[in-house]
Amino acid sequence: MKSFRFIIRIFPVILAGILLLSPARVRTPLQFPDILGYRTLKCDFHMHTVFSDGNVWPTVRAEEAWRNGLDAIAITDHIEYQPHKADVNPDHNRSFDIARPDGEKLGITMIKGSEITRKMPPGHLNAIFIRDASLLAKDTWREALAEAVKQDAFIFWNHPGWKGQQPDGVARWYPEHTELFEQGNLHGIEVVNEREYYPEAHRWSIEYNLTMLSNSDVHDPVFMDYDPDHGDHRAYTLVFATDNSVEAIREALFDRRTVVVLNNLMAGAEPWLQAIFKNSVQVKNSTLIISAGESVYLQVHNTTAVDYALVRADTIDGFEFPHEVILYGGKTVLIKIKRIAKEIPEQLQISLPFRVSNLKVTPDESLFVEFPLTIIPASE
Amino acid sequence: MKSFRFIIRIFPVILAGILLLSPARVRTPLQFPDILGYRTLKCDFHMHTVFSDGNVWPTVRAEEAWRNGLDAIAITDHIEYQPHKADVNPDHNRSFDIARPDGEKLGITMIKGSEITRKMPPGHLNAIFIRDASLLAKDTWREALAEAVKQDAFIFWNHPGWKGQQPDGVARWYPEHTELFEQGNLHGIEVVNEREYYPEAHRWSIEYNLTMLSNSDVHDPVFMDYDPDHGDHRAYTLVFATDNSVEAIREALFDRRTVVVLNNLMAGAEPWLQAIFKNSVQVKNSTLIISAGESVYLQVHNTTAVDYALVRADTIDGFEFPHEVILYGGKTVLIKIKRIAKEIPEQLQISLPFRVSNLKVTPDESLFVEFPLTIIPASE
Amino acid sequence: MKSFRFIIRIFPVILAGILLLSPARVRTPLQFPDILGYRTLKCDFHMHTVFSDGNVWPTVRAEEAWRNGLDAIAITDHIEYQPHKADVNPDHNRSFDIARPDGEKLGITMIKGSEITRKMPPGHLNAIFIRDASLLAKDTWREALAEAVKQDAFIFWNHPGWKGQQPDGVARWYPEHTELFEQGNLHGIEVVNEREYYPEAHRWSIEYNLTMLSNSDVHDPVFMDYDPDHGDHRAYTLVFATDNSVEAIREALFDRRTVVVLNNLMAGAEPWLQAIFKNSVQVKNSTLIISAGESVYLQVHNTTAVDYALVRADTIDGFEFPHEVILYGGKTVLIKIKRIAKEIPEQLQISLPFRVSNLKVTPDESLFVEFPLTIIPASE
Amino acid sequence: MKSFRFIIRIFPVILAGILLLSPARVRTPLQFPDILGYRTLKCDFHMHTVFSDGNVWPTVRAEEAWRNGLDAIAITDHIEYQPHKADVNPDHNRSFDIARPDGEKLGITMIKGSEITRKMPPGHLNAIFIRDASLLAKDTWREALAEAVKQDAFIFWNHPGWKGQQPDGVARWYPEHTELFEQGNLHGIEVVNEREYYPEAHRWSIEYNLTMLSNSDVHDPVFMDYDPDHGDHRAYTLVFATDNSVEAIREALFDRRTVVVLNNLMAGAEPWLQAIFKNSVQVKNSTLIISAGESVYLQVHNTTAVDYALVRADTIDGFEFPHEVILYGGKTVLIKIKRIAKEIPEQLQISLPFRVSNLKVTPDESLFVEFPLTIIPASE
Repeated sequence: MKSFRFIIRIFPVILAGILLLSPARVRTPLQFPDILGYRTLKCDFHMHTVFSDGNVWPTVRAEEAWRNGLDAIAITDHIEYQPHKADVNPDHNRSFDIARPDGEKLGITMIKGSEITRKMPPGHLNAIFIRDASLLAKDTWREALAEAVKQDAFIFWNHPGWKGQQPDGVARWYPEHTELFEQGNLHGIEVVNEREYYPEAHRWSIEYNLTMLSNSDVHDPVFMDYDPDHGDHRAYTLVFATDNSVEAIREALFDRRTVVVLNNLMAGAEPWLQAIFKNSVQVKNSTLIISAGESVYLQVHNTTAVDYALVRADTIDGFEFPHEVILYGGKTVLIKIKRIAKEIPEQLQISLPFRVSNLKVTPDESLFVEFPLTIIPASE
Repeated sequence: MKSFRFIIRIFPVILAGILLLSPARVRTPLQFPDILGYRTLKCDFHMHTVFSDGNVWPTVRAEEAWRNGLDAIAITDHIEYQPHKADVNPDHNRSFDIARPDGEKLGITMIKGSEITRKMPPGHLNAIFIRDASLLAKDTWREALAEAVKQDAFIFWNHPGWKGQQPDGVARWYPEHTELFEQGNLHGIEVVNEREYYPEAHRWSIEYNLTMLSNSDVHDPVFMDYDPDHGDHRAYTLVFATDNSVEAIREALFDRRTVVVLNNLMAGAEPWLQAIFKNSVQVKNSTLIISAGESVYLQVHNTTAVDYALVRADTIDGFEFPHEVILYGGKTVLIKIKRIAKEIPEQLQISLPFRVSNLKVTPDESLFVEFPLTIIPASE
Repeated sequence: MKSFRFIIRIFPVILAGILLLSPARVRTPLQFPDILGYRTLKCDFHMHTVFSDGNVWPTVRAEEAWRNGLDAIAITDHIEYQPHKADVNPDHNRSFDIARPDGEKLGITMIKGSEITRKMPPGHLNAIFIRDASLLAKDTWREALAEAVKQDAFIFWNHPGWKGQQPDGVARWYPEHTELFEQGNLHGIEVVNEREYYPEAHRWSIEYNLTMLSNSDVHDPVFMDYDPDHGDHRAYTLVFATDNSVEAIREALFDRRTVVVLNNLMAGAEPWLQAIFKNSVQVKNSTLIISAGESVYLQVHNTTAVDYALVRADTIDGFEFPHEVILYGGKTVLIKIKRIAKEIPEQLQISLPFRVSNLKVTPDESLFVEFPLTIIPASE
Repeated sequence: MKSFRFIIRIFPVILAGILLLSPARVRTPLQFPDILGYRTLKCDFHMHTVFSDGNVWPTVRAEEAWRNGLDAIAITDHIEYQPHKADVNPDHNRSFDIARPDGEKLGITMIKGSEITRKMPPGHLNAIFIRDASLLAKDTWREALAEAVKQDAFIFWNHPGWKGQQPDGVARWYPEHTELFEQGNLHGIEVVNEREYYPEAHRWSIEYNLTMLSNSDVHDPVFMDYDPDHGDHRAYTLVFATDNSVEAIREALFDRRTVVVLNNLMAGAEPWLQAIFKNSVQVKNSTLIISAGESVYLQVHNTTAVDYALVRADTIDGFEFPHEVILYGGKTVLIKIKRIAKEIPEQLQISLPFRVSNLKVTPDESLFVEFPLTIIPASE
């Protein structure tokens, strides 16, 4: 391509940047700190392939997971719904068996699963960590779930508020769910599915002690529906596990060590969210020298990919600080602090209290956080 | 989501821009002018699905084409290579039959095709506009091509320089290609395949009067390999047709009314490239008033998605103008013109001569273009 | 740079895209149709330089305007507030005189203006189309405005709801504004300033027949505060004028031929908004053939840079269509229409009614639009 | 804004991403590891303001530096060239004095400097760490430099290949530079200025033991010329210092502890580049289990903002690995390793040798790096 070489000679200026542009096969990390002695794994436990009503070959799911920065996935094709079966092998184990070698070669933990697809109640349930998906094809949902239990599956209720089964968009808990719960056969619930957050499911996860999950339920190619390099990632679940083995993830799920993520929305138990926040937010100058009437900047860096939207939770006598602050993911921002107080002690300890409005401890309550500071009066 | 509504109240500033961000099902037009009495159609005549060695369900190809701004596609699964056949119906007509209704609903012209997949020579050849792909499954390539001819197919040679069949990356013309050509059964050639431009193929297209084609040959989901919203589009062929019917496209291909495109690289016969250039470049101020020793700006707008990289082809007595100019796609740029001449006539006609280095008339020659201007001396 | 040439040889694949990346001096057009016999000019009548409290040299304002796709600007440095005057010439005419030649060379219409900067009431007022800014430096605001009137200025009230003068963020109309209005010396009002839309100002613009304006009031470099290439543009006013001369813009402003724009928010009188909408939205297939019980897609293309957020204004017997649709700027989207009616006439005329929720005719009412369609029953 | 709240209700899906979009005042870190016991500071020692021929108020330079992730800057207005002096205070100390408080409030180390602006030879020289810029205004360049030396300045030669003084673009070393060098009064040299890399200057920096510098020399607003959030950053110098104090930076410069950066191009002494590379590249799986004839992936993560373009430096008996690999900044990529050897020891140590073609140790030589691996034969 002679003419291009020519352009390159004449526009050398362009060259220093050239390497940025390319059709790259790259993995973009999802930055979250490891916390409380666990590794923080990014997982998606619900997705489809051409072997049920999905539109990609199973290996694509492994490649997408790697590029999206995920650590583990479960392909969960429908047992009872196979619209492509005139053209595609209906064997329920095939999608996992085909995808597994590609995923393992890329270091993705591959978990075998299926979606037990029944009308409401009980609706759709995923069974993961199963051994033989074909055995889940039964006449009744009770039989199918009994088989899943027999295979030591982790079972969770999918998209409880899905309009396909809840036309008004409101999740409903049926006696069948109570039945499952009381048998010990309902272990988790999707608080987020695709792009929807279900406050009712969040509430039930707390009330019934169910593991919270956030899954993409993706049917089409991920990169057709999402643009993760420009801020739009599929839904995923943070799993706090001892390592990235199938067994460790299984143990973590049964132990409810998860936080759900939908782009900038996170939900989970307070200790997990608090640990994520504390380990991902760096205050660069927590000792501040301020004259009376003057203001200084606190510099705060957020290492995650999630923006934290802070709202002031209280005021502090003698000081002013902003009512709202967004700690942008991967960026450093300024929090302006003004000293109103004329006289202050030589080393004053204060603590800025905020709610992180997009980190939800319950459907109605956001995470409370504090920035402890030492204030020193400027010698004037 | 109460807390989000709260954020929205407190950051109203953000709102005016909110609609930009979303998981949108949109078609991004590929802007090119209609020229010389024809519509300029954007087409991709080479791609795969799970029915051969591709990784998507056929309907995905229709959706991708619509989103990518294409007007017509041919799905061309391999006849002789079906690595998924243990799991997927080997019927060669299925991928087209499945994709067609989705494509037509979206207004995409769907063309039936197959890739006759033989070792070199003659290598891989696409037969499109066929009626029954299954009949192309023959023992020898000569029989397969005879059947394609019988079905009135348009036949073209795929990726002549593909390293899979040309380990040194250099395309070679074999006696078998001469045989096909002399029988009138070789109608076109891929000058661009995936991300490669083959100068030899370009030369042969001129020498043998073959239709030039540029195709993606995509196997994976398009949006996994390309990022068209950020300047990286799959390869496509501009077809100059009377309308977007299958028949009109067929006629245009047999009549060699095409230009090939690979992001910013275009190649084709001079009249097509010249017409595209002239109808997509707008000079905003072609009459310029200049004092001796002064300079003014010519403002030039490029309506296409392709950047034109101009290199000065000659100098003009009495005036200075830049050695190189990039007319960025969708943008207006400045060309600085300085009058050196002390005395000039009252209405001087000049013409700025450039080569468009990324628009190739032959492998070695770029399109020559001129900007005619009227220069008027400033009254001093 | 030998090694780069090497990289280029080894990664030829990268090259076809290379020209996209560069430090370009380009103008990005703001796409809006010309309407009702007028040219649609994009204008910003409020900005600052180092000659008052701004932070750029005046020529930067001309360059930014050209790059941002604007047609006309007024630099309006403060008369009464010159915090840099210890270091910068306090002459009120200097910023315009310095910027003007650069702007005119780029084809930007340069309008002379000043900001009469008084405490509330009457607050800050811009006087544009003035001849000598220095004469506006008077003891009282009444004298300053009298001088502006004497210079045939167009006078408008800036940021009526600015928190600097309205601590609760609510705009208030004072007797002084009534005084100005009754004298015929208040011609326009900023309905948008920087990133704020003032509903009260919108209401007054209707009640008092004032020209609506949307201005950036930018003090810092525009590209430091905005990212127009990624969807975040400074505020601007659409002016419907006979041409882009100073006189034609002046006439248009006095004649109230404007629409205000703040990214995706537009506000203005119904006829202007309706004409903009109609001339920028293209329905690609307004005749639809539909079987009973089936659905088809209407394809709608929006040529502007603004997204239109449609909300269904009514239902239509016998048909279903979506409750909300976003017509993304520069994109084509699909509106799914389902025929419920069993029997329909041979050529049925229907009209889809929507409100464009981000195009505001009053603070409380959005533009009403319709898509007229012809429905033809599919022959079954 | 009632209608917006409405849109938000109806498109809740959009909301989880909303916080990403905003007019943010943020600092984007330039990621480089601290090395060899030093902090790695990002610095720009050459820029202009309205106080010479620049186009921004001095405080803008502090704000830009903070947002660009820099740690230290020197504003270096021309002593001998003040085209705005009819309107702007000609005092050479003003730009620093005005910018300093803003910079310090943001934590930017502010260094006082000036550009001694003479024709070639010796051309333009920056003197930084000076105390009184006004004293540098002398009749001859020798006197000016003598004064700089008296103030303990660090003195470097600016843009040695600048076309304004070297019309053919080739840097030339004059006797005057020898004179300066021999007096010990030439301490550094710009190997990169704005967007140009000068191979001659690189060579001289090695030959004469001069500190290498890379500076933006920016005159316009930085965000008008660069788009750091999309991969185009101004030039900067990495300084390896004990801390970010003025004194530590001064010591580091005199001690030649620098590496120059121009987007993806880096140049410097081998130990610095090697340490940067080693501390920013993480091999995720350096022990590989491979069957004969099989291939596995090495996963390599690059934590910096710079892409490393690797080219294979040698082959390894019994194994195949790619000829070129780009380690994209902030991404993980795959290096495919194929075992050809039939028999291998139980724990084989190999080392993949590459040149990093965009990390230049000399103008003609790229950094040599190795990836040590342990290969274990798969038990078959």
